[in-house]
Amino acid sequence: MSLPERDTRQSIVDTAERFFRDIGYQKTTVADIAKSLRMSPANVYRFFDSKKSINEAVLARFKGELEESLSLIIAEQRSAGSRLREMLLTAHRINQARFADQHRMQEMVCAAMEESWDAILGHIERFDALLGRVIAEGIANGEFRALDPVAATQCIRTAMLRFQHPLLMAQCERIPGPTAEEMIDFIMAALEQPKAEN
Amino acid sequence: MSLPERDTRQSIVDTAERFFRDIGYQKTTVADIAKSLRMSPANVYRFFDSKKSINEAVLARFKGELEESLSLIIAEQRSAGSRLREMLLTAHRINQARFADQHRMQEMVCAAMEESWDAILGHIERFDALLGRVIAEGIANGEFRALDPVAATQCIRTAMLRFQHPLLMAQCERIPGPTAEEMIDFIMAALEQPKAEN
Repeated sequence: MSLPERDTRQSIVDTAERFFRDIGYQKTTVADIAKSLRMSPANVYRFFDSKKSINEAVLARFKGELEESLSLIIAEQRSAGSRLREMLLTAHRINQARFADQHRMQEMVCAAMEESWDAILGHIERFDALLGRVIAEGIANGEFRALDPVAATQCIRTAMLRFQHPLLMAQCERIPGPTAEEMIDFIMAALEQPKAEN
Repeated sequence: MSLPERDTRQSIVDTAERFFRDIGYQKTTVADIAKSLRMSPANVYRFFDSKKSINEAVLARFKGELEESLSLIIAEQRSAGSRLREMLLTAHRINQARFADQHRMQEMVCAAMEESWDAILGHIERFDALLGRVIAEGIANGEFRALDPVAATQCIRTAMLRFQHPLLMAQCERIPGPTAEEMIDFIMAALEQPKAEN
Protein backbone atom coordinates (compact mmCIF):
# COMPACT_ATOMS: atom_id res chain seq x y z
CA MET A 1 0.00 0.00 0.00
CA SER A 2 1.44 3.42 -0.97
CA LEU A 3 1.83 6.14 1.66
CA PRO A 4 -1.18 8.21 0.48
CA GLU A 5 -3.26 5.04 0.45
CA ARG A 6 -2.21 4.24 3.98
CA ASP A 7 -3.15 7.78 5.01
CA THR A 8 -6.57 7.43 3.38
CA ARG A 9 -7.17 4.10 5.09
CA GLN A 10 -6.18 5.66 8.41
CA SER A 11 -8.51 8.64 7.87
CA ILE A 12 -11.40 6.31 7.16
CA VAL A 13 -10.74 4.40 10.39
CA ASP A 14 -10.41 7.67 12.39
CA THR A 15 -13.61 9.06 10.97
CA ALA A 16 -15.53 5.83 11.45
CA GLU A 17 -14.43 5.63 15.05
CA ARG A 18 -15.64 9.20 15.67
CA PHE A 19 -19.02 8.37 14.09
CA PHE A 20 -19.33 5.14 16.09
CA ARG A 21 -18.60 7.06 19.29
CA ASP A 22 -20.87 10.02 18.52
CA ILE A 23 -23.92 8.51 16.86
CA GLY A 24 -23.37 4.76 17.33
CA TYR A 25 -22.38 1.86 15.09
CA GLN A 26 -25.88 0.93 13.96
CA LYS A 27 -26.79 4.45 12.83
CA THR A 28 -23.52 5.16 11.03
CA THR A 29 -23.48 4.48 7.28
CA VAL A 30 -20.54 4.14 4.91
CA ALA A 31 -22.05 7.15 3.09
CA ASP A 32 -21.75 9.24 6.31
CA ILE A 33 -18.08 8.34 6.62
CA ALA A 34 -17.40 9.08 2.94
CA LYS A 35 -19.25 12.39 3.04
CA SER A 36 -17.37 13.55 6.12
CA LEU A 37 -14.10 12.79 4.30
CA ARG A 38 -15.35 14.47 1.11
CA MET A 39 -14.89 11.30 -0.88
CA SER A 40 -17.28 8.98 -2.69
CA PRO A 41 -18.62 5.86 -0.97
CA ALA A 42 -17.01 3.93 -3.84
CA ASN A 43 -13.64 5.24 -2.71
CA VAL A 44 -14.27 4.02 0.85
CA TYR A 45 -15.23 0.63 -0.61
CA ARG A 46 -11.83 0.48 -2.33
CA PHE A 47 -10.37 0.10 1.17
CA PHE A 48 -13.11 -1.72 3.09
CA ASP A 49 -15.75 -3.97 1.62
CA SER A 50 -18.34 -3.23 4.32
CA LYS A 51 -19.07 -1.31 7.53
CA LYS A 52 -18.28 -4.55 9.34
CA SER A 53 -14.73 -4.47 7.89
CA ILE A 54 -14.30 -0.87 9.04
CA ASN A 55 -15.46 -1.87 12.52
CA GLU A 56 -12.89 -4.68 12.51
CA ALA A 57 -10.20 -2.14 11.62
CA VAL A 58 -11.28 0.22 14.44
CA LEU A 59 -11.21 -2.66 16.90
CA ALA A 60 -7.92 -4.03 15.56
CA ARG A 61 -6.26 -0.65 16.06
CA PHE A 62 -7.56 -0.38 19.62
CA LYS A 63 -6.56 -3.93 20.47
CA GLY A 64 -3.22 -3.44 18.72
CA GLU A 65 -2.49 -0.48 21.01
CA LEU A 66 -3.49 -2.55 24.04
CA GLU A 67 -1.28 -5.46 22.95
CA GLU A 68 1.59 -3.03 22.34
CA SER A 69 1.27 -1.68 25.91
CA LEU A 70 1.33 -5.20 27.30
CA SER A 71 4.36 -6.14 25.19
CA LEU A 72 6.27 -3.17 26.58
CA ILE A 73 5.54 -4.34 30.13
CA ILE A 74 6.63 -7.91 29.29
CA ALA A 75 9.99 -6.57 28.10
CA GLU A 76 10.74 -4.84 31.44
CA GLN A 77 13.45 -6.22 33.72
CA ARG A 78 11.48 -7.22 36.80
CA SER A 79 9.77 -10.24 38.33
CA ALA A 80 7.09 -12.12 36.39
CA GLY A 81 4.64 -11.46 39.23
CA SER A 82 5.16 -7.73 39.12
CA ARG A 83 4.84 -7.62 35.33
CA LEU A 84 1.73 -9.79 35.34
CA ARG A 85 0.07 -7.53 37.91
CA GLU A 86 0.83 -4.49 35.82
CA MET A 87 -0.37 -6.14 32.62
CA LEU A 88 -3.74 -7.01 34.18
CA LEU A 89 -4.17 -3.55 35.64
CA THR A 90 -3.12 -1.86 32.39
CA ALA A 91 -5.52 -3.95 30.30
CA HIS A 92 -8.31 -3.06 32.70
CA ARG A 93 -7.51 0.66 32.66
CA ILE A 94 -7.25 0.84 28.88
CA ASN A 95 -10.56 -0.99 28.43
CA GLN A 96 -12.21 1.11 31.09
CA ALA A 97 -11.05 4.39 29.56
CA ARG A 98 -12.41 3.21 26.24
CA PHE A 99 -15.70 1.68 27.23
CA ALA A 100 -16.91 2.73 30.67
CA ASP A 101 -19.74 5.25 30.31
CA GLN A 102 -19.40 4.87 26.54
CA HIS A 103 -22.66 3.22 25.68
CA ARG A 104 -22.03 3.64 21.95
CA MET A 105 -18.56 2.14 22.07
CA GLN A 106 -20.11 -0.87 23.78
CA GLU A 107 -22.56 -1.10 20.86
CA MET A 108 -19.58 -1.24 18.50
CA VAL A 109 -18.07 -4.18 20.38
CA CYS A 110 -21.42 -5.98 20.56
CA ALA A 111 -21.75 -5.63 16.80
CA ALA A 112 -18.28 -7.13 16.39
CA MET A 113 -19.27 -10.02 18.66
CA GLU A 114 -22.23 -10.69 16.38
CA GLU A 115 -20.59 -10.06 13.02
CA SER A 116 -16.85 -10.59 13.43
CA TRP A 117 -16.43 -13.43 15.86
CA ASP A 118 -13.16 -14.59 14.30
CA ALA A 119 -11.65 -11.15 14.87
CA ILE A 120 -12.75 -11.18 18.52
CA LEU A 121 -11.34 -14.66 18.96
CA GLY A 122 -8.06 -13.52 17.40
CA HIS A 123 -7.77 -10.73 19.97
CA ILE A 124 -8.47 -13.15 22.82
CA GLU A 125 -5.82 -15.52 21.50
CA ARG A 126 -3.23 -12.75 21.32
CA PHE A 127 -4.15 -11.56 24.83
CA ASP A 128 -3.79 -15.13 26.11
CA ALA A 129 -0.43 -15.48 24.34
CA LEU A 130 0.88 -12.34 26.05
CA LEU A 131 -0.33 -13.39 29.53
CA GLY A 132 0.84 -16.92 28.88
CA ARG A 133 4.40 -15.78 28.17
CA VAL A 134 4.79 -14.11 31.56
CA ILE A 135 3.03 -16.96 33.36
CA ALA A 136 5.29 -19.56 31.74
CA GLU A 137 8.32 -17.45 32.67
CA GLY A 138 7.17 -17.25 36.30
CA ILE A 139 6.61 -21.00 36.44
CA ALA A 140 10.03 -21.67 34.88
CA ASN A 141 11.90 -19.40 37.30
CA GLY A 142 10.07 -20.78 40.35
CA GLU A 143 8.17 -17.60 41.22
CA PHE A 144 4.86 -19.27 40.39
CA ARG A 145 3.61 -22.72 41.31
CA ALA A 146 4.01 -25.59 38.87
CA LEU A 147 0.60 -25.01 37.25
CA ASP A 148 -0.51 -25.84 33.73
CA PRO A 149 0.28 -22.50 32.05
CA VAL A 150 -2.55 -22.77 29.50
CA ALA A 151 -5.24 -23.43 32.11
CA ALA A 152 -3.78 -20.73 34.39
CA THR A 153 -3.88 -18.20 31.55
CA GLN A 154 -7.50 -19.03 30.76
CA CYS A 155 -8.49 -18.85 34.43
CA ILE A 156 -6.87 -15.44 34.84
CA ARG A 157 -8.46 -14.07 31.69
CA THR A 158 -11.84 -15.41 32.86
CA ALA A 159 -11.44 -14.07 36.41
CA MET A 160 -10.73 -10.61 34.94
CA LEU A 161 -13.67 -10.70 32.52
CA ARG A 162 -15.73 -8.33 34.64
CA PHE A 163 -12.93 -5.75 34.30
CA GLN A 164 -12.47 -6.12 30.53
CA HIS A 165 -15.79 -6.93 28.91
CA PRO A 166 -17.50 -3.71 27.80
CA LEU A 167 -20.99 -4.77 28.86
CA LEU A 168 -19.95 -6.29 32.17
CA MET A 169 -18.02 -3.18 33.15
CA ALA A 170 -21.30 -1.26 32.93
CA GLN A 171 -23.47 -3.96 34.57
CA CYS A 172 -21.09 -4.79 37.38
CA GLU A 173 -20.61 -1.20 38.46
CA ARG A 174 -23.89 -1.61 40.28
CA ILE A 175 -22.77 -4.77 42.12
CA PRO A 176 -20.70 -4.73 45.34
CA GLY A 177 -16.93 -5.10 44.71
CA PRO A 178 -14.30 -6.32 44.26
CA THR A 179 -11.98 -3.64 42.87
CA ALA A 180 -9.64 -4.63 40.03
CA GLU A 181 -6.76 -4.43 42.51
CA GLU A 182 -8.47 -6.85 44.93
CA MET A 183 -9.17 -9.26 42.08
CA ILE A 184 -5.54 -9.11 40.93
CA ASP A 185 -4.33 -9.76 44.52
CA PHE A 186 -6.59 -12.79 44.65
CA ILE A 187 -5.27 -14.07 41.32
CA MET A 188 -1.67 -13.61 42.44
CA ALA A 189 -2.38 -15.59 45.60
CA ALA A 190 -3.39 -18.54 43.41
CA LEU A 191 -0.29 -18.21 41.25
CA GLU A 192 2.56 -17.31 43.53
CA GLN A 193 4.61 -19.86 45.40
CA PRO A 194 3.43 -20.11 48.98
CA LYS A 195 5.39 -17.85 51.29
CA ALA A 196 5.88 -18.88 54.89
CA GLU A 197 2.89 -17.44 56.74
CA ASN A 198 1.28 -18.30 60.10
CA MET B 1 -52.58 -15.89 52.33
CA SER B 2 -55.08 -18.75 52.36
CA LEU B 3 -54.16 -22.11 50.90
CA PRO B 4 -56.25 -21.71 47.72
CA GLU B 5 -54.73 -18.26 47.26
CA ARG B 6 -51.26 -19.70 47.60
CA ASP B 7 -52.14 -22.34 45.01
CA THR B 8 -53.44 -19.70 42.62
CA ARG B 9 -50.32 -17.61 43.05
CA GLN B 10 -48.20 -20.71 42.41
CA SER B 11 -50.19 -21.58 39.27
CA ILE B 12 -49.66 -18.08 37.92
CA VAL B 13 -45.92 -18.37 38.46
CA ASP B 14 -45.82 -21.85 36.87
CA THR B 15 -47.78 -20.71 33.85
CA ALA B 16 -45.78 -17.51 33.42
CA GLU B 17 -42.56 -19.46 33.55
CA ARG B 18 -43.80 -21.81 30.84
CA PHE B 19 -44.79 -18.86 28.64
CA PHE B 20 -41.45 -17.11 29.23
CA ARG B 21 -39.63 -20.29 28.22
CA ASP B 22 -41.82 -21.08 25.21
CA ILE B 23 -42.55 -17.72 23.60
CA GLY B 24 -40.27 -15.36 25.56
CA TYR B 25 -40.73 -12.70 28.21
CA GLN B 26 -41.28 -9.79 25.85
CA LYS B 27 -44.03 -11.50 23.86
CA THR B 28 -45.90 -12.89 26.86
CA THR B 29 -48.81 -10.77 28.15
CA VAL B 30 -50.67 -10.96 31.46
CA ALA B 31 -53.75 -11.70 29.35
CA ASP B 32 -52.03 -14.81 27.90
CA ILE B 33 -51.25 -16.07 31.38
CA ALA B 34 -54.78 -15.40 32.62
CA LYS B 35 -56.39 -17.03 29.58
CA SER B 36 -54.28 -20.15 29.94
CA LEU B 37 -55.44 -20.42 33.58
CA ARG B 38 -59.06 -19.69 32.60
CA MET B 39 -59.18 -16.67 34.84
CA SER B 40 -59.62 -12.96 34.19
CA PRO B 41 -56.58 -10.68 33.92
CA ALA B 42 -58.10 -8.80 36.88
CA ASN B 43 -57.71 -11.94 38.97
CA VAL B 44 -54.02 -12.22 38.01
CA TYR B 45 -53.59 -8.57 38.98
CA ARG B 46 -54.97 -9.38 42.47
CA PHE B 47 -51.72 -11.33 42.98
CA PHE B 48 -49.20 -9.43 40.86
CA ASP B 49 -49.38 -5.79 39.90
CA SER B 50 -47.45 -6.23 36.65
CA LYS B 51 -45.66 -8.70 34.38
CA LYS B 52 -42.46 -7.43 35.96
CA SER B 53 -43.69 -8.62 39.38
CA ILE B 54 -44.50 -12.03 37.94
CA ASN B 55 -41.00 -12.20 36.47
CA GLU B 56 -39.57 -11.34 39.88
CA ALA B 57 -41.59 -14.21 41.40
CA VAL B 58 -40.33 -16.67 38.73
CA LEU B 59 -36.77 -15.58 39.38
CA ALA B 60 -37.22 -15.59 43.17
CA ARG B 61 -38.44 -19.18 43.06
CA PHE B 62 -35.52 -20.28 40.90
CA LYS B 63 -32.99 -18.45 43.05
CA GLY B 64 -34.71 -19.74 46.20
CA GLU B 65 -34.19 -23.30 44.98
CA LEU B 66 -30.55 -22.55 44.21
CA GLU B 67 -30.02 -20.97 47.65
CA GLU B 68 -31.71 -23.97 49.27
CA SER B 69 -29.29 -26.37 47.51
CA LEU B 70 -26.33 -24.32 48.70
CA SER B 71 -27.66 -24.21 52.27
CA LEU B 72 -27.90 -27.99 52.31
CA ILE B 73 -24.25 -28.26 51.26
CA ILE B 74 -23.20 -25.74 53.94
CA ALA B 75 -24.83 -27.91 56.60
CA GLU B 76 -22.80 -31.00 55.68
CA GLN B 77 -20.09 -32.26 58.02
CA ARG B 78 -16.96 -31.85 55.95
CA SER B 79 -14.17 -29.37 55.34
CA ALA B 80 -14.94 -25.81 54.32
CA GLY B 81 -12.85 -26.29 51.18
CA SER B 82 -14.77 -29.35 50.08
CA ARG B 83 -18.12 -27.65 50.73
CA LEU B 84 -17.08 -24.47 48.93
CA ARG B 85 -16.00 -26.45 45.87
CA GLU B 86 -19.30 -28.24 45.78
CA MET B 87 -21.28 -25.02 46.25
CA LEU B 88 -19.54 -23.37 43.30
CA LEU B 89 -20.00 -26.40 41.07
CA THR B 90 -23.64 -26.81 42.10
CA ALA B 91 -24.44 -23.15 41.45
CA HIS B 92 -22.86 -23.48 38.02
CA ARG B 93 -24.72 -26.67 37.17
CA ILE B 94 -28.10 -25.31 38.28
CA ASN B 95 -27.61 -22.10 36.28
CA GLN B 96 -26.36 -24.01 33.28
CA ALA B 97 -29.31 -26.41 33.30
CA ARG B 98 -31.63 -23.43 33.46
CA PHE B 99 -30.03 -21.06 31.00
CA ALA B 100 -27.58 -22.74 28.63
CA ASP B 101 -29.19 -23.07 25.18
CA GLN B 102 -32.28 -21.36 26.60
CA HIS B 103 -32.23 -18.14 24.69
CA ARG B 104 -35.66 -17.15 26.02
CA MET B 105 -34.78 -17.79 29.65
CA GLN B 106 -31.82 -15.48 29.13
CA GLU B 107 -34.26 -12.84 27.84
CA MET B 108 -36.19 -13.18 31.11
CA VAL B 109 -33.08 -12.52 33.18
CA CYS B 110 -32.05 -9.60 30.96
CA ALA B 111 -35.50 -8.08 31.49
CA ALA B 112 -35.07 -8.48 35.25
CA MET B 113 -31.67 -6.78 35.04
CA GLU B 114 -33.34 -3.84 33.34
CA GLU B 115 -36.55 -3.67 35.35
CA SER B 116 -35.90 -5.31 38.71
CA TRP B 117 -32.38 -4.41 39.68
CA ASP B 118 -33.13 -4.48 43.42
CA ALA B 119 -34.32 -8.07 43.13
CA ILE B 120 -31.15 -9.08 41.24
CA LEU B 121 -29.04 -7.32 43.84
CA GLY B 122 -30.91 -9.15 46.61
CA HIS B 123 -30.07 -12.50 45.01
CA ILE B 124 -26.41 -11.54 44.68
CA GLU B 125 -26.33 -10.50 48.34
CA ARG B 126 -27.83 -13.80 49.47
CA PHE B 127 -25.41 -15.74 47.27
CA ASP B 128 -22.51 -13.75 48.76
CA ALA B 129 -23.82 -14.40 52.28
CA LEU B 130 -23.87 -18.16 51.66
CA LEU B 131 -20.37 -18.24 50.16
CA GLY B 132 -19.16 -15.86 52.85
CA ARG B 133 -20.28 -18.20 55.64
CA VAL B 134 -18.16 -21.10 54.39
CA ILE B 135 -15.22 -18.84 53.61
CA ALA B 136 -15.30 -17.30 57.10
CA GLU B 137 -15.49 -20.80 58.60
CA GLY B 138 -12.46 -21.93 56.58
CA ILE B 139 -10.50 -18.85 57.65
CA ALA B 140 -11.46 -19.37 61.30
CA ASN B 141 -10.46 -23.06 61.35
CA GLY B 142 -7.17 -22.41 59.56
CA GLU B 143 -8.03 -24.23 56.33
CA PHE B 144 -7.94 -20.98 54.38
CA ARG B 145 -5.45 -18.13 54.53
CA ALA B 146 -6.14 -15.14 56.71
CA LEU B 147 -7.88 -13.20 53.91
CA ASP B 148 -10.53 -10.52 54.20
CA PRO B 149 -13.65 -12.72 53.90
CA VAL B 150 -15.76 -10.03 52.21
CA ALA B 151 -13.21 -9.31 49.48
CA ALA B 152 -12.54 -13.05 49.02
CA THR B 153 -16.27 -13.71 48.58
CA GLN B 154 -16.60 -10.94 46.00
CA CYS B 155 -13.51 -12.15 44.13
CA ILE B 156 -14.82 -15.71 43.99
CA ARG B 157 -18.26 -14.63 42.82
CA THR B 158 -16.62 -12.43 40.16
CA ALA B 159 -14.20 -15.14 39.03
CA MET B 160 -17.18 -17.50 38.55
CA LEU B 161 -19.28 -14.95 36.64
CA ARG B 162 -18.65 -16.63 33.31
CA PHE B 163 -20.18 -19.83 34.74
CA GLN B 164 -23.26 -18.18 36.26
CA HIS B 165 -24.30 -15.23 34.12
CA PRO B 166 -26.89 -16.35 31.56
CA LEU B 167 -25.49 -14.24 28.71
CA LEU B 168 -21.86 -15.05 29.41
CA MET B 169 -22.54 -18.76 29.52
CA ALA B 170 -23.71 -18.48 25.91
CA GLN B 171 -20.99 -16.06 24.74
CA CYS B 172 -18.09 -17.81 26.45
CA GLU B 173 -18.93 -21.22 25.05
CA ARG B 174 -17.19 -20.04 21.90
CA ILE B 175 -14.00 -19.00 23.75
CA PRO B 176 -11.21 -21.43 24.72
CA GLY B 177 -11.54 -22.76 28.32
CA PRO B 178 -11.28 -22.94 31.25
CA THR B 179 -13.78 -25.53 32.48
CA ALA B 180 -15.72 -24.74 35.65
CA GLU B 181 -13.63 -27.37 37.45
CA GLU B 182 -10.36 -25.71 36.37
CA MET B 183 -11.65 -22.32 37.50
CA ILE B 184 -12.66 -23.75 40.89
CA ASP B 185 -9.21 -25.38 41.30
CA PHE B 186 -7.63 -22.02 40.59
CA ILE B 187 -9.86 -20.29 43.13
CA MET B 188 -9.08 -22.90 45.78
CA ALA B 189 -5.35 -22.40 45.19
CA ALA B 190 -5.81 -18.72 46.12
CA LEU B 191 -7.81 -19.59 49.24
CA GLU B 192 -6.23 -22.66 50.75
CA GLN B 193 -3.32 -22.54 53.14
CA PRO B 194 -0.11 -23.27 51.28
CA LYS B 195 0.81 -26.92 51.44
CA ALA B 196 4.44 -27.94 51.33
CA GLU B 197 5.23 -28.34 47.61
CA ASN B 198 8.51 -28.39 45.69
